[in-house]
Amino acid sequence: MADFQRVMDHAVAVARKAGEESVAAGEACILTDDPTWIIDPIDGTTNFVHAFPFVAISIGFSINKQVEVGVIYSCLEDKMFTARRGKGAFCNGEPLQVSDQTDIHQAIICTEFGSNRDPEVVDKMFCSLRNILSLPVQGVRGAGTAAINMCLVASGCVEAYYEIGVHVWDFAAGSLMVTEAGGVLMDVDGGELDLMSRRIIAANSRTIAERLVKEIAPFRLPRDDAPPQKQ
Amino acid sequence: MADFQRVMDHAVAVARKAGEESVAAGEACILTDDPTWIIDPIDGTTNFVHAFPFVAISIGFSINKQVEVGVIYSCLEDKMFTARRGKGAFCNGEPLQVSDQTDIHQAIICTEFGSNRDPEVVDKMFCSLRNILSLPVQGVRGAGTAAINMCLVASGCVEAYYEIGVHVWDFAAGSLMVTEAGGVLMDVDGGELDLMSRRIIAANSRTIAERLVKEIAPFRLPRDDAPPQKQ
Repeated sequence: MADFQRVMDHAVAVARKAGEESVAAGEACILTDDPTWIIDPIDGTTNFVHAFPFVAISIGFSINKQVEVGVIYSCLEDKMFTARRGKGAFCNGEPLQVSDQTDIHQAIICTEFGSNRDPEVVDKMFCSLRNILSLPVQGVRGAGTAAINMCLVASGCVEAYYEIGVHVWDFAAGSLMVTEAGGVLMDVDGGELDLMSRRIIAANSRTIAERLVKEIAPFRLPRDDAPPQKQ
Repeated sequence: MADFQRVMDHAVAVARKAGEESVAAGEACILTDDPTWIIDPIDGTTNFVHAFPFVAISIGFSINKQVEVGVIYSCLEDKMFTARRGKGAFCNGEPLQVSDQTDIHQAIICTEFGSNRDPEVVDKMFCSLRNILSLPVQGVRGAGTAAINMCLVASGCVEAYYEIGVHVWDFAAGSLMVTEAGGVLMDVDGGELDLMSRRIIAANSRTIAERLVKEIAPFRLPRDDAPPQKQ
């Protein structure tokens, strides 16, 4: 815990400094090759406000636009998830392994409704959800936080998580957790994951991920590295 | 815990006997005025199979068709919820109180997709969900177990739970948990809750429950006390 405290103190200080500077300058949020902290101090804000039992602190660290370290602390479960590229993923020190289930009909899929209520977005979201539910899959769940949804994939409790509308700070740490636990990442259209695109599939296997691609109605939202909109 | 163990041993023995006898005789599952255990040994079976972290044992006890005692043990959270009619509801001995939020736009609503994939049922389910999401509410969640969804209402973490397709053994104990924590129960069409109807709204207040009634597309499924279908 002392190590975690040090990481947290450093991360929060860096985030505060970076946040102040870039917001003050009206800068776009560009992911560069520089060493970069990618932090969500509270992932699952709505859950947090309501004391719904899934709330996480998510900390990623990237170099050359590649996530090298991921730490997710599920505060109310008191579970500390950690991953380092090439070194595996762990929960409270125990190694994580994705599920070996490749039959979509036996799968649980996580997703979220997010906060966008634009009717066209809701149409697409419901279309995807209905397609997936009707395959049928064994269940659809959503913890209310991307970080914990990805920890659930890494832990083997669910086979996949997908969402359109998340931000890089929601899933940077989680993306490493999933790959280090043996899982795969993909864009919702089947291409390579783009950290700034706000779209992700994180799955236990390529088989499950590619099956989801067939059912998801993809759409695009402003990227995380788009220039800030004028007030 | 010793008390709980005694209740559980008795309940499981009664359930086994009742189950064996009524299944063997092909009887309908009728709720009478007799003292009756209403038990779900594992609520959240899909979660249980996948180690998704919400799994509950749900035990209700009714006399004159009224639930007098409710016990729900959330196994992986290690939370013991207890309620006795007129004596309040508790979690690990601490009194429970529903949320005082009556603004639907600030509410989190729980529901489930269940296991019925009949296209007409899915149509109605998605219609209700879309109406509620678009109010908008602050969030929609689902723990994957009716019993825990109702404990979340009783604990004040979410404002309401509704579902069509649950069984009396899923929600008997939870129904008492909610009312003893200050909440209300209602049928999805706004009438009085019917324990055997497989339909429920459990909310923190009449205001929230009645708002949901306006958005839910109601439908009926075979009741829990319907004669068993011939094989």
